Formats: sequence, structure tokens, C-alpha cells
Amino acid sequence: MQVKNYIQSNKERFLEELFSLIRIPSVSAKHEYKQEMQLCAQRWAEVLISSGVDKACVMPAAGNPVVYAEKLIAPEAPTVLVYGHYDVMPPEPLELWKSNPFEPLVRDGRIWARGADDDKGQAMTQVKGFETALNLGLLRCNVKFIIEGEEEIGSPSLESFCRQHKELLKADVIVVSDTSMISREIPSLTTGLRGLAYWEVELTGPNRDLHSGHFGGAVANPIHTLCKLLAGMTDADGRITLPGFYDDVEDVSPAERAMIARIPFDEAGYKASIGVDELFGEKGYATLERNSCRPAFDICGIWGGYTGEGAKTILPSKAYAKVSCRLVPHQNHKKIEALFADHLSRIAPASVKVKVTALHGGQGYVCPIDLPAYKAAEKAMGIAFGTTPLAVRRGGSIPIISSFEEILGIKTVLMGFGLEQNAIHSPNESFPLDFFYKGIETVAGFYKEYR
Amino acid sequence: MQVKNYIQSNKERFLEELFSLIRIPSVSAKHEYKQEMQLCAQRWAEVLISSGVDKACVMPAAGNPVVYAEKLIAPEAPTVLVYGHYDVMPPEPLELWKSNPFEPLVRDGRIWARGADDDKGQAMTQVKGFETALNLGLLRCNVKFIIEGEEEIGSPSLESFCRQHKELLKADVIVVSDTSMISREIPSLTTGLRGLAYWEVELTGPNRDLHSGHFGGAVANPIHTLCKLLAGMTDADGRITLPGFYDDVEDVSPAERAMIARIPFDEAGYKASIGVDELFGEKGYATLERNSCRPAFDICGIWGGYTGEGAKTILPSKAYAKVSCRLVPHQNHKKIEALFADHLSRIAPASVKVKVTALHGGQGYVCPIDLPAYKAAEKAMGIAFGTTPLAVRRGGSIPIISSFEEILGIKTVLMGFGLEQNAIHSPNESFPLDFFYKGIETVAGFYKEYR
Repeated sequence: MQVKNYIQSNKERFLEELFSLIRIPSVSAKHEYKQEMQLCAQRWAEVLISSGVDKACVMPAAGNPVVYAEKLIAPEAPTVLVYGHYDVMPPEPLELWKSNPFEPLVRDGRIWARGADDDKGQAMTQVKGFETALNLGLLRCNVKFIIEGEEEIGSPSLESFCRQHKELLKADVIVVSDTSMISREIPSLTTGLRGLAYWEVELTGPNRDLHSGHFGGAVANPIHTLCKLLAGMTDADGRITLPGFYDDVEDVSPAERAMIARIPFDEAGYKASIGVDELFGEKGYATLERNSCRPAFDICGIWGGYTGEGAKTILPSKAYAKVSCRLVPHQNHKKIEALFADHLSRIAPASVKVKVTALHGGQGYVCPIDLPAYKAAEKAMGIAFGTTPLAVRRGGSIPIISSFEEILGIKTVLMGFGLEQNAIHSPNESFPLDFFYKGIETVAGFYKEYR
Repeated sequence: MQVKNYIQSNKERFLEELFSLIRIPSVSAKHEYKQEMQLCAQRWAEVLISSGVDKACVMPAAGNPVVYAEKLIAPEAPTVLVYGHYDVMPPEPLELWKSNPFEPLVRDGRIWARGADDDKGQAMTQVKGFETALNLGLLRCNVKFIIEGEEEIGSPSLESFCRQHKELLKADVIVVSDTSMISREIPSLTTGLRGLAYWEVELTGPNRDLHSGHFGGAVANPIHTLCKLLAGMTDADGRITLPGFYDDVEDVSPAERAMIARIPFDEAGYKASIGVDELFGEKGYATLERNSCRPAFDICGIWGGYTGEGAKTILPSKAYAKVSCRLVPHQNHKKIEALFADHLSRIAPASVKVKVTALHGGQGYVCPIDLPAYKAAEKAMGIAFGTTPLAVRRGGSIPIISSFEEILGIKTVLMGFGLEQNAIHSPNESFPLDFFYKGIETVAGFYKEYR
């Protein structure tokens, strides 16, 4: 009750502190936001200090700076390391936003803004939950925070930062709020994540755009060649054709498949919510398996030739695509990256030149459900949301989670408060206000339980 | 000799008049150039008047205005109708131009600018050749000019303009300079053109860009679906798979194939000039057949999803392509347009919605080589270029040429002075200065011959 009361008394301030972070357009994918990254990191340090940490600082890293903070209560107490990220996805296409992505507002019980959920809103549940537990005298452990600025571009500098600051980051468990629940009615904790491999493909045909009347029929069209190469990456059954791709994919156990089958899934509602008449994926697997514990191939972007108004009759010189694979635990993203680049170069016809650049990648992850921190999170979430959360694998990737395990030797509990309909990475991202506060309540409850 | 002398005495002025036209960026594909279209039409009328026509006017049309001019010397004399176009292709990509596309300059014996060849430079050879013949007293026929402003977008208003002004446009033959020769060493006259069908394809998958981690594997990716649909439009032998596509394609006669085989073709030089290691096209046909008397399928542009810097992990909502077919005589572009739209809608999976918009099209054309005007052109070009031109089919499309035949009942002689390396429709378009003047000489010689 005291937790709920504290949150109720401070809810306007919590929201204003979150808004002050959202208003800084910390888009890591674009160089022009370099200065905003620094400003956003500094603002996080201020927010952490006002939340009660002993110290907070903006630490230099190879790329965008990392915010570090700590509250150490006793050397013998266990230590929780909270991870979050202050960078956000690009807001484009801007014309589809109903309001300014960097001017947050509350409408229909939701916060609307880029980063409202991913990850400013969610990371704030950690900070304000910590503040609540601290101020109510519930905290029984040491707490450290790292908030990085490159998660959306694959955390290229965080691994070296971790290697460099192993002692500083020493902890018993890592806690992260950057994942989603099954639904508003079915709270869940994420116990598995997919890995990722992401490439940019550049095909060059003729050395300039050619007149399609004079050359069409005689010279291979690089866009068409790219279409043929990418079309062949999956077969009619939705299986990825890249030779060797499935070598390290673990068969999902019958027990786990049975558990997935118990998760309520409304296919008609799912299709309606995203506006498609038919789903498509790997044959032999259910939708909830296809998007969580099976790998996937996607084309995230494609471009080439004339894309303006009207009709320009050219046989273009160049064609490009951004291509990704979601990977499952045991698949090595570096191996897959190399397989794809080699394969594409090998199967491309001599009529084009192929360049494949790996843009980012990371490993999948599995969290054991008997971990004390998992049990504490499960109990706290059950109290805040009114029902015990399910343990589920999710399809997204947080590549750094598996790196934490590898470099720091620490397991992570994924205590996420997102929902599918929050449209993270899309226009009109949002975060339900009640989830923001229930998230804070869960985190405060976690600190009450965990010791 | 008198023709050469007249051209020599006026060559600087001819060039300056051409430059005054090039400096007006008359890009028909983009609405923002509406005013420049009007200015360019007016400038053509001024140039025609100063070249000796009785009258020249800018006539309203459904789209951009049409410039009309005439010099009527005797009612009983035959009449030549000269057709050209004052609009140009968009200059993009601008960063590849070595100089401003709309600030013409002479370098290495060439005029460099958008429209230097297509079609401002070539149309000026007609106007200045006419001026030369007129001022030297060589003209034996009436001459009419129409210069339109929508050729590069498929002449959408010219057919109705022709139907509306049938009497005004009455003539015995149409003459057009808007095609290319085989090479600098091998002058040629174009006796066949390909038709064109051009579509924009829009695929819609989910109603918004989705997070590829949460949805990848469960929802069809519309870019990937577009790749699969377009990849299948040709088979491994380079044949177009659209059912019914080849129904009306005339088999090229053994005699014509033998004539094509006599045209010198340096495959290594051709490949080197466009920077490709291997050519590709329909099996069973030579390169010069594939790009002239056989149809072709091309993707002129493609776009969708995230195309900015870095890696954005989305499963996009939309995918687009600009797709075209070059057609051969007897293929009906409207029939092909409908075939493609129907076929794509039929084969697309239920996971996407397909929208196909026909952007422009036109019929192919064949010119008989025993036409008196053809004979006059052949002789005049032989004198100016030092060798009798070959009669050849070309792969480009001037859809209005077949419409002239259909609506006005008049055949066209294609008296083009372009060269492949002039890079029309591409960055760094150019036109050799000597061809500009030899073109003028040919046209003056044509008027000397034709009666």
C-alpha cells in the first residue's frame, strides 16, 4: 500500500521527468544527433541523482557516452545492475505521426512519443521504482545503473566498455525493462530473446543509369537481379535457404512447444490489429513459435533507380537492400553474417558486382526461471498486475544481453512492461500511463523481495 | 558547299540559341517545373520566329502547352511536319553531374547538359536546318513544327491535341530528330521503335511498420513479397513469364535477323563502355536483337522500408516499384498493361494488398524504307556524314510516333543524330558539337532533296 501511495503522490513529477528525457531527440542511427546524445546522457545523470543514487556520471565510450550511477548500501549485500538505453529509433516516416514524436503528450490514457516505451519510458520505471524503494526504506541490495546510447544500432561500443569496466559493473544479476508482455490481460516475463544479423547489400550493374529503351533486354537490371537474389532467400515453405543456416538451430523441445501452445492467441485479432488478411511463416510451426523461438528472414528496406514522381525509363546502375535475420539461441551471428555474405557473392551473376556489409548483430539469450531475481520479479509483477506472469520467449533481440553473460558472467532478468500495440520502432509509439506506474510499482516490489 | 558555309558563318549563334533553351529546366515529370515549361515553350516560339517561320505560337493543351509554327510556301507543294519535344528527363542523381545540368558548356568537343541531345539539341538541328534551307532558297515544301512538352512522361495530352487539330497538322510526312545512330562511324536511320508499358506497383502488408523482432517470421514481409513477385516476371532464359505476353510478338524474319547480324558490334567494347562483365538477355537472340526488336522487362525503380543510415529493424508496411516493358510492333500496350495488372493481382499472396497503376505507354512503330522522305533523308545524311546510313530498328520508344500514324494517318521519318555515349536520361548527358552541325547540314540537305 505504501508503494502505491508513494507513486500516487509523485506521479506528475515522474511523468515530467520522463518527458524531459523524451524531448531530447536522441536518435543514434543518425550522425546529426551527436549533440543530442550527449545532452540526453547528461539529463539521465541528473534524473538519477535526483532519484537518490550516491553518484551518477556520463562516462566516455568508443561511441555515444554511457551513463553510470550507483547506490551502494552494504558491501555484503547482493548487487543489482540495471541496464537501459537512452537512444531511440529514427522517427521516420514523420508524415504518419499524429503528433510531434519528440513532444510527448498524454491522450486516451497513453503517452505518445518516440521513446515513450522503447526505452525511455521503460527505463524510467526502473529508476523511479528504485527511488520508491529507497525512499520507503525497502532497499536491501546495492544498485548500479548503466544507460547506454547505442542499443538501437546494435550497441557497438558497449562490449568494450564492459571489458574495460568489469570491476565497476560487478553485480549478481542484471535487470532490464526493454521487452513486452503478451497482452494487457496476460502479464509475462521474457525468458528468451532472438539474436540478430543485419546487412546492407549493394548491387552494381552498369556504371551509370542507362536508357531502358536502348539497353533494356541486353543488360541485366541490377534491381531485378537483387529481387531474384533476395526472393530466393526463402522457399515456398518459408524456410531460409542459406546453406548451413539451420545447422546450429536447436529444435524446440516438445515441452516448450506445449507451453507455447498454452499461451492464448487470437489469430483473428492479431491479423486485424496489423491489418493483414493472411499470416505467413515457416511451415510446421505456430505463429507464436515463428516469432519467438524460430529464426526469420526480413528485408527492412530496399531502394534503387528512380523513385520520384512519374515515369523515368531507366535501367539503373545500383540497387540496395537492408536485410536481417532474427536468430535463435546457439546460432552464432558472426557465422551467419559470413555465410550470407559468402553465399550472396557466390550466387550473384557476373552481370553485377555485389557488396555486403554487416551492419550489426548479436546472440540470442535464455534466462533460467529458478534464478532468485527472476522469482522476485515474478512475485512483484504478480502483485502489481494482479496475476502471476507467464515465462515466455520473445522474438526481439537485445544483443547486449548475451554479451553481458559472456563478458561479465551475469544473467539478466527481463522485466519488461511493453505491449505489442505500443508500436515501438513505428510511427505513433505510445506507452499506457497505467503500465508506466504499474512498472514502477513492480520494480519497487522487486527491491522489497530481492536480497 | 553553300550549306556548309551558311552553317559555318552562323555556328556561334546556333549554339547560343540552343543554350538559351537548355538553361530553362523544363522537367515534365515534376509539378514544380510548371512555370519553366511555359517559359521554355515561349522561348521555342521566339527561336522559330527568328528562324524564318511565318508564324509561331504557344497553343494550350490538356497538359503542358504545344509550340506550333509554320512556313507555307505553296498550297500545291508537299508538307513536312516536324515534331520535337522541349521537355527533358529529371537530372537526378545530381551529385553525379560534373557540371550543372542546366548550365550548358562545351568541353572536349561536346555540349554537356540535360537536353543537350534529348531533345533540345536534336530538335534544334531541325529548326536550324530549316533556317539554312530557307535562307539559301533551297526549300521546296511547306514546313510545320510541333514541339511538345510531355514526351518524357509519355505524351499524355498530344493525342487529344492531334485529334483536335487534325486540319492544322495535315502533312505528307512527319520528320523527327530524337533517335540515335549506331555509332560515330556508322550513321543510320531508325526504321523501327519499341513500344512501352510502364507501371507503378504498390504492395501493402501490415498497416504500419512493425518491429521485425516481434513480428519477423510470423508476418509476410511486403518487400520480400514484392521481390518474389518481380523476380518471377522473367525466367532463367530471360523470357518474360507474364501469360499472353508474347501472343502478338512478331517473329523477326530471317532476312531482318541477317541484316542485324551485319551491323558491326564490339561486345567487349560495349561491355566496357557500361562497366559490366557479362551481358544478359533473352536466350536465342543476339544483343542487338534483344535491345531493338525483342521485348524487355525492366525495374526502373524500387523503394520501401528504411533506407536511411544505419540499421532500423522493421518489417515494413509498404513496398513500391516502377516497372516497365519495352514492346515490339504489334504488341498492344493497353493489352499488356491490363495483363500485368491482372496477373500481379492474381499471383500475389493474400498476405499483401496489390495496387498497380499504369503510368504511361505507347505502341511500337515501323517505317518503310521506300518512302520518298526516307530516301531524301538517306541521301542528305549520306552527304553530311560521308557514308550512306544503314536502316536499323532501335530499342527506345517514342509512343507518339505510332499515334501520329493512327490519328493523323502520316508516316514518320526518324532522322536522329544521337549516339549511345551521349548518355541521355543519365547524368552528364552530352551531344558532340560536330554532330549538332552535321545534323543541321542533313536537315538542310533533306529540304533540298524533298519535294
